[in-house]
Amino acid sequence: MIFEEKKISSQRIYEGAILNVRRDKVTALKGEAHREIIEHNGAVAMVALTDEGKIIMVEQFRYACGRAVLEVPAGKIDAGENDPAAVAVRELKEETGYTAGNIKLLGRINTSAAYSEEMISVYAMTKLTPGEQDLDEDEALNVYEMPFDEVYDMAASGKLIDAKTIAALMMAKAQLGL
Amino acid sequence: MIFEEKKISSQRIYEGAILNVRRDKVTALKGEAHREIIEHNGAVAMVALTDEGKIIMVEQFRYACGRAVLEVPAGKIDAGENDPAAVAVRELKEETGYTAGNIKLLGRINTSAAYSEEMISVYAMTKLTPGEQDLDEDEALNVYEMPFDEVYDMAASGKLIDAKTIAALMMAKAQLGL
Repeated sequence: MIFEEKKISSQRIYEGAILNVRRDKVTALKGEAHREIIEHNGAVAMVALTDEGKIIMVEQFRYACGRAVLEVPAGKIDAGENDPAAVAVRELKEETGYTAGNIKLLGRINTSAAYSEEMISVYAMTKLTPGEQDLDEDEALNVYEMPFDEVYDMAASGKLIDAKTIAALMMAKAQLGL
Repeated sequence: MIFEEKKISSQRIYEGAILNVRRDKVTALKGEAHREIIEHNGAVAMVALTDEGKIIMVEQFRYACGRAVLEVPAGKIDAGENDPAAVAVRELKEETGYTAGNIKLLGRINTSAAYSEEMISVYAMTKLTPGEQDLDEDEALNVYEMPFDEVYDMAASGKLIDAKTIAALMMAKAQLGL
C-alpha cells in the first residue's frame, strides 16, 4: 500500500515556451507538503535503424548541459498533438531526413519522476528512406550513422550522458533482438 | 563543428525548494533565442546489489507522475555538498537501511538535456549490510529485494517508466558483468 498524495491547491509560477512551472500544496504522510512541478507536453525519441544495422544519432549543443550531446533523435509533442507516433515520424524526418516505413513503440518513460510531468514515448523505426533535413530555424545538429553495437557499448560503459538515449538503446536491443 | 550557444542575458523566474527556473537569452544560429532552464543541484542513483544477486528497489508515489513508480534508490544532492559518492552512501542508508561496503561510479547522466541542468551520478553498491530506514518526514516508500534479471527484463520490455532506473540497470549489467 503506497500513500497517494492529493492536490490541495495549485500556484501558477511560470508559463513558458517549452514548459510551465507550478507549485502544488498536497496531502502528505504527515500533514501537508509542497511539490514543484514542471509541466511539459511530452516528447518522442527514436531508435532509427538502417537495414545495415546502423543507428541514426544526432549531436547538438545542449545549452542546459553546456556542451554538445550525442543522442537518439527526439522531439517534443506540441500542444494539441495527440498522436506521438505521428510526431515521431515527423521529427525523424525533420531532424535527420529519414522517413521510416516501420514503427514500433518500445516504451514510455519519465525523465524526472521527482518533478517533471514529461513522458517520452520511445519508438524503434526501421525500413528507412533517406531524404532532406528540415530543421527549425535555431536548430543546428549533426547527423551520424553509427554501428548499433558501438553506440550501445558507449552507453553501457558510461560514455553517453543522455538518459533517454541510454534507456532507448537498452529497450531496443532487448525488444528487437539486436 | 557544433554551433555553441552563448549566454547574452539571464532572467530569474523562480527560486524553489528543489529547483530554480531561469530564462536565458542566447546567441543562436540565426540571431537570438531563449532557453528555459531548470537549475537543479544534481542527484545520485544507486544500483545496490546483495551477495545473492538481488537488487534493492524502492516504490513510492510520484506526484509528478500521478502514480507509484518502481525505481532504484536515489536522492538529490543538497546545496554545498560536493561529494556525490558520500551522498549516495547516505541516501541508500536513509531510503533502504542498507550500508554499502563497496561503491563504483557507473556514469553520470542528464535527465532532460533540452531544459534541465540536473546531472545524476549513478553508482553500483555492493557488500551490503542491512539496517534501519531513516526517511524524511514526508517520505513514504516501500523497499523490495528483487532478482536483478527480473528487474532488468521489466526495464528492457518497457514495463518500468523511470528513465534513470533503466539507464542505471543497463550500465550496471554491462560494467559488473551481471
